Amino acid sequence: MVATELRVIYGDTDQMGVVYYANYLRFFEAGRNEFIRAKGLRYRDFEEVHRLRLPVVEAHVAYKSPARYDDLLRVETRLTEVRRASARFGYRILRAGDLLVTGHTVHACVDLEGRVQRMPSALLDRLLPAEETDA
Amino acid sequence: MVATELRVIYGDTDQMGVVYYANYLRFFEAGRNEFIRAKGLRYRDFEEVHRLRLPVVEAHVAYKSPARYDDLLRVETRLTEVRRASARFGYRILRAGDLLVTGHTVHACVDLEGRVQRMPSALLDRLLPAEETDA
Amino acid sequence: MVATELRVIYGDTDQMGVVYYANYLRFFEAGRNEFIRAKGLRYRDFEEVHRLRLPVVEAHVAYKSPARYDDLLRVETRLTEVRRASARFGYRILRAGDLLVTGHTVHACVDLEGRVQRMPSALLDRLLPAEETDA
Amino acid sequence: MVATELRVIYGDTDQMGVVYYANYLRFFEAGRNEFIRAKGLRYRDFEEVHRLRLPVVEAHVAYKSPARYDDLLRVETRLTEVRRASARFGYRILRAGDLLVTGHTVHACVDLEGRVQRMPSALLDRLLPAEETDA
Repeated sequence: MVATELRVIYGDTDQMGVVYYANYLRFFEAGRNEFIRAKGLRYRDFEEVHRLRLPVVEAHVAYKSPARYDDLLRVETRLTEVRRASARFGYRILRAGDLLVTGHTVHACVDLEGRVQRMPSALLDRLLPAEETDA
Repeated sequence: MVATELRVIYGDTDQMGVVYYANYLRFFEAGRNEFIRAKGLRYRDFEEVHRLRLPVVEAHVAYKSPARYDDLLRVETRLTEVRRASARFGYRILRAGDLLVTGHTVHACVDLEGRVQRMPSALLDRLLPAEETDA
Repeated sequence: MVATELRVIYGDTDQMGVVYYANYLRFFEAGRNEFIRAKGLRYRDFEEVHRLRLPVVEAHVAYKSPARYDDLLRVETRLTEVRRASARFGYRILRAGDLLVTGHTVHACVDLEGRVQRMPSALLDRLLPAEETDA
Repeated sequence: MVATELRVIYGDTDQMGVVYYANYLRFFEAGRNEFIRAKGLRYRDFEEVHRLRLPVVEAHVAYKSPARYDDLLRVETRLTEVRRASARFGYRILRAGDLLVTGHTVHACVDLEGRVQRMPSALLDRLLPAEETDA
């Protein structure tokens, strides 16, 4: 598990006084980026070095309690499943220990022309073992 | 079913050259707004007249094919389920007949203090019957 | 002048109950896209056919009165100045005849490697004369 | 001057491969929030304690060089002018010492009904002196 902190700005909220529902997918992305960075990888290298992309094929969000302006949020990201040509990340967003939002995203592994590819073992070796120990 | 048209702008895309995954939830909201308007209601009246809100408790998106800059998208919105104190909308986003994205949102019915409320029959009468005929 | 209509969604607002200040630049972009389309051009052709881009080098917004959720806005876009290697667009955003926001953007004309280029006369012929007549 | 760090995500970029022009106003807001926090204030107290708001009446951005995905940006925020009933903030956005974007915002001081108000001296005493020393 890798944790990231985010501060909610006015631009994240809507007139209901809470974070707009689409913006939690932005927060998930920020968590995913930090997960990959924490494993010693850079998402931009997936493209530039490995010639791969991980487009989202499915996203799910469960909203339990709203985040508000100026909240300091903690995004916890886990790699919860890796298959031959796809990966699944799980997310939990908390504020001071309270669980606000959970969700997951599923990503395909494709080359730059969009063809499905097996996830390279060099990447899997980086992403998986550390995860098993600290999950 | 109620259909809305939307034009993709640069601000909707990301550097992968396609619409950023969170922005489809914006498109779903635009579709939901038009659905409510097409039933002769205004979402702002839910708050101002009925003292109710319909916060999202769950959102799901399945990404089949990417939308791109300048695409003219058609968002089809259906009210797919109404329970005592919640409602579920289903969405399909198409470009020139091709299905790009599907998804749904589930909304609770709460008063302005956030307490769960039964959906008023005056609202249900507006939302439901027309839907059954044109779905 | 070319006019475009836009409907404000929840995702455009912030917790002050009005459209978030950055989002008017999205509305300006929508206006600019429709301006270019109205002249028989497509912005994607600037890149694909003419190998040019028009990156923004300056943006200015004056906020007179706030737009709100569900407002139907009218974005009026004008090409107010064309120089050798830059162009300036002016914008007015209105709701039911009331002027809410004005602003402008200045765009450089560069090739795909980012070098400043003279605006091609084939483009200028399309953009300018019609504008002079209907401005 | 108060500095804040921000990491660019995919959701901030557009298909030109750079940060979308409207999003720098989000970054300015993040800088403004940290400026106020660094002075021992909370923007939410402006509303809750002082019954005041600081709506933006003008925003200006000069784009010198683009920020890209995964960049770690430094937003420098200064309070550059305080008048009887308005304030002006100046911003500089840098990446590894390179200046990418500059800009400013002008804010009115109004009460919760929108009437222009003199800035309370209790707030000015907090915002100004420290600024003079570290500007």
